[in-house]
Amino acid sequence: MRQIIFMTAFKVGIIGAGPSGLAMLRAFESEQKKGNPIPELKCYEKQDNWGGMWNYTWRTGVGKYGEPLHGSMYKYLWSNGPKECLEFADYTFTEHFGQPISSYPPREVLFDYIEGRIKQSNARDYIQFNTVARWVDYLPETKQFRVIFDNLVKNETFEEIFDYLVVGTGHFSTPNMPYFKGIDNFPGAVMHAHDFRGADQFKNQKLLLIGSSYSAEDIGVQCYKHGSAGVTISYRSNPLGSKWPDGIKEKPLVTHFEGNKAFFKDGTSEEFDAVVFCTGYQHKFPFLPDNLRLKTKNCLYPDNLYKGVIFHENEKLIFLGMQDQYYTFNMFDTQAWFARDYMLGRVALPNGQERRKDIDKWMDYEKRSLTGEEHVDFQTDYIKDLISYTDYPAFDLDKVADMFKSWLKDKEESILGYRDKVYQSVMDNTHAEKHHTKWMKEMDDSLERYLDEQPADEFELSKENYY
Amino acid sequence: MRQIIFMTAFKVGIIGAGPSGLAMLRAFESEQKKGNPIPELKCYEKQDNWGGMWNYTWRTGVGKYGEPLHGSMYKYLWSNGPKECLEFADYTFTEHFGQPISSYPPREVLFDYIEGRIKQSNARDYIQFNTVARWVDYLPETKQFRVIFDNLVKNETFEEIFDYLVVGTGHFSTPNMPYFKGIDNFPGAVMHAHDFRGADQFKNQKLLLIGSSYSAEDIGVQCYKHGSAGVTISYRSNPLGSKWPDGIKEKPLVTHFEGNKAFFKDGTSEEFDAVVFCTGYQHKFPFLPDNLRLKTKNCLYPDNLYKGVIFHENEKLIFLGMQDQYYTFNMFDTQAWFARDYMLGRVALPNGQERRKDIDKWMDYEKRSLTGEEHVDFQTDYIKDLISYTDYPAFDLDKVADMFKSWLKDKEESILGYRDKVYQSVMDNTHAEKHHTKWMKEMDDSLERYLDEQPADEFELSKENYY
Repeated sequence: MRQIIFMTAFKVGIIGAGPSGLAMLRAFESEQKKGNPIPELKCYEKQDNWGGMWNYTWRTGVGKYGEPLHGSMYKYLWSNGPKECLEFADYTFTEHFGQPISSYPPREVLFDYIEGRIKQSNARDYIQFNTVARWVDYLPETKQFRVIFDNLVKNETFEEIFDYLVVGTGHFSTPNMPYFKGIDNFPGAVMHAHDFRGADQFKNQKLLLIGSSYSAEDIGVQCYKHGSAGVTISYRSNPLGSKWPDGIKEKPLVTHFEGNKAFFKDGTSEEFDAVVFCTGYQHKFPFLPDNLRLKTKNCLYPDNLYKGVIFHENEKLIFLGMQDQYYTFNMFDTQAWFARDYMLGRVALPNGQERRKDIDKWMDYEKRSLTGEEHVDFQTDYIKDLISYTDYPAFDLDKVADMFKSWLKDKEESILGYRDKVYQSVMDNTHAEKHHTKWMKEMDDSLERYLDEQPADEFELSKENYY
Repeated sequence: MRQIIFMTAFKVGIIGAGPSGLAMLRAFESEQKKGNPIPELKCYEKQDNWGGMWNYTWRTGVGKYGEPLHGSMYKYLWSNGPKECLEFADYTFTEHFGQPISSYPPREVLFDYIEGRIKQSNARDYIQFNTVARWVDYLPETKQFRVIFDNLVKNETFEEIFDYLVVGTGHFSTPNMPYFKGIDNFPGAVMHAHDFRGADQFKNQKLLLIGSSYSAEDIGVQCYKHGSAGVTISYRSNPLGSKWPDGIKEKPLVTHFEGNKAFFKDGTSEEFDAVVFCTGYQHKFPFLPDNLRLKTKNCLYPDNLYKGVIFHENEKLIFLGMQDQYYTFNMFDTQAWFARDYMLGRVALPNGQERRKDIDKWMDYEKRSLTGEEHVDFQTDYIKDLISYTDYPAFDLDKVADMFKSWLKDKEESILGYRDKVYQSVMDNTHAEKHHTKWMKEMDDSLERYLDEQPADEFELSKENYY
């Protein structure tokens, strides 16, 4: 018997098949499985596979077809937050791996998990890979979007018309890289964290990291772990303030460079072999006309997004995942479920004035949130609000918030050891298992090694230990 | 008395303010100076200054605003051909510098020369910098182009309508970078020549260069000169075959990598600290619909360009500088002069069939040209043909061809010494002067040092000499 698929009369274009775009597809799939009509869906992905940021590439700069690379991940990247905080409510880690695993898995393991859920659906049929959105025109008469796509493999352009456009292209791909006097004559490697592909290149080198957020913290720790001769982190306003081991230190902002020597605001100077700019990313939408662009710095509640999702200037345009993130995968899910129900007409859209008021309310709330703990509470409340509109499986968000706060403390106590801690899933109550090897001794980040029970070879390790 | 500017009734858009785009502006300016009407001109440049490839940037990957970087040049880049072969016919090196200089100046000196000519005009008034062409629609009813531009500084998009569109965006900016098995686990630096910014980073390192054209040749020699521990050049079909010094060698193609070890087709293997892909560039026009894209590999006569300039499928579209290049600046000039006279209606356009025949004739000629000398003759004949249509100042092209052939021999005789040779200008008969310091001893590529009469300090040099 042929399956009858009910379709609504409209068409949705999704740009990006990372965690956000996949969440959108998954949201519609869940609706379809209930026998309800869904719109015609098309999803376009610049890379040759799904997974977005989690789809690792060895390349830097531009990709095989000359497009700016999406990926910012590197070898030896392990989750820097407990996996229990990003777990899908409808697909648990235990369901995927069939056994408890540790709370801080490496990148490949998380990619496997993301893929595990989406592989159970027919999402791949909707996605055209190696295809980049080139230009969007809004057609006011029909309230539709004309989107020009570029098939990178065929070097062919084509257009599609959509009633709704969902942008899930992320905002950790376009480097923000300020100029410092003299950097143009620095003799060693100079790169943005976006192009950092692993610590090996910096073994026995003295490394300067400029910036004081997650990139600097993690690249610093990775390079320390894998044998750099020394890491200096240069902050603009505030130091990270972790309890650093000998071999990592913080200094105020660089003022300028002379040859291989960096000068700092405190009057000190130091010679370096390489400089990595950990100076953050820009929200960048080259394919959108500027009146449809989300223009924001990285924050918890970007302006002009009703419920963090619906573009205020054009309610046919939807952005997913544009927030700074404590929550990740499950936040994208709740956004996608909300966007789905909005497009299906189940969530009524208030008028512009009320939307503006709602946005302002959240932006005010963010302004009043100052500490890490308060930011966690903010994003928890945001997700609670979103989830109240849809049938995304309820989960104990307060417990997740507690885990985030506990994670913040763990990092404070031990920046090298926090990844050895374990947490409990709020989705299925699974207690995470300790990883077979302490994180600082675990030099292999492969899925095979991660799922293997063998402890690391002590002789091999002795060659690599620098702590 | 106010100057009266005569204008034609049409409007020309120029994309790119490198040597090609500037040649287009200069061509119209020269017409204007004769009191003849010229069209309305607008030129858009992605970078923050003119000069195209010659506008050096310390950045790699993407630029300040997240656009793929145009520049592929590096510190210590010296002309790899005699300047007498690229001299403008209407602005000589002697006119610019007021004294004879050597035949192989460094990048900054050539940039200064390019800028010298264009600064005498009002070209800058026509150019909008930091502005990228985002998308072009051809409007068949009016035979015009709608071009969307993106002002990167303001994050604002806008559109312009043009009767003719001149594309001078170059074709040495988008890396071609094949995958080799195992390269994703190579522990050291991996980059394309496009992102190579100087030899210093590779001091005392063992370097693998993949590719056997100008990039490999020059980066190899530069790294040798500036103290690499060893350079291996891996070729696909034919070795460069230069008389290499100890410290540079050639090997057949890499088959794969294991860790830091590369395996070659001849069964040998070798460990390296870094890999630079000198594997060429792609012609890339993301802003054009595919039916307006020039689709070609790097060659002396790309298909679908009548006289190497007018797009065969749409004669309102003009490409400059899309050829592989022996001649450079003066070839772009002759192309721009031809394009100008074509747009002004002075050069009649044959019908499609005849244009096709002409293109085929040149493509056949290229096919029959096999050696370096024959390629020089081909491009010489091409420029002679172009120049016959316009008033671009005539110059002795046969003598330039002889210089190219002599340059090929010089390189064969001494890959480290050919830049010490001197040539004579065909434009004003100036004999080049020998540079005050032998190229292999000249570690400073600044304009100041170049124009300085002081020989290099022998003690300083002794610290850097590795040959």
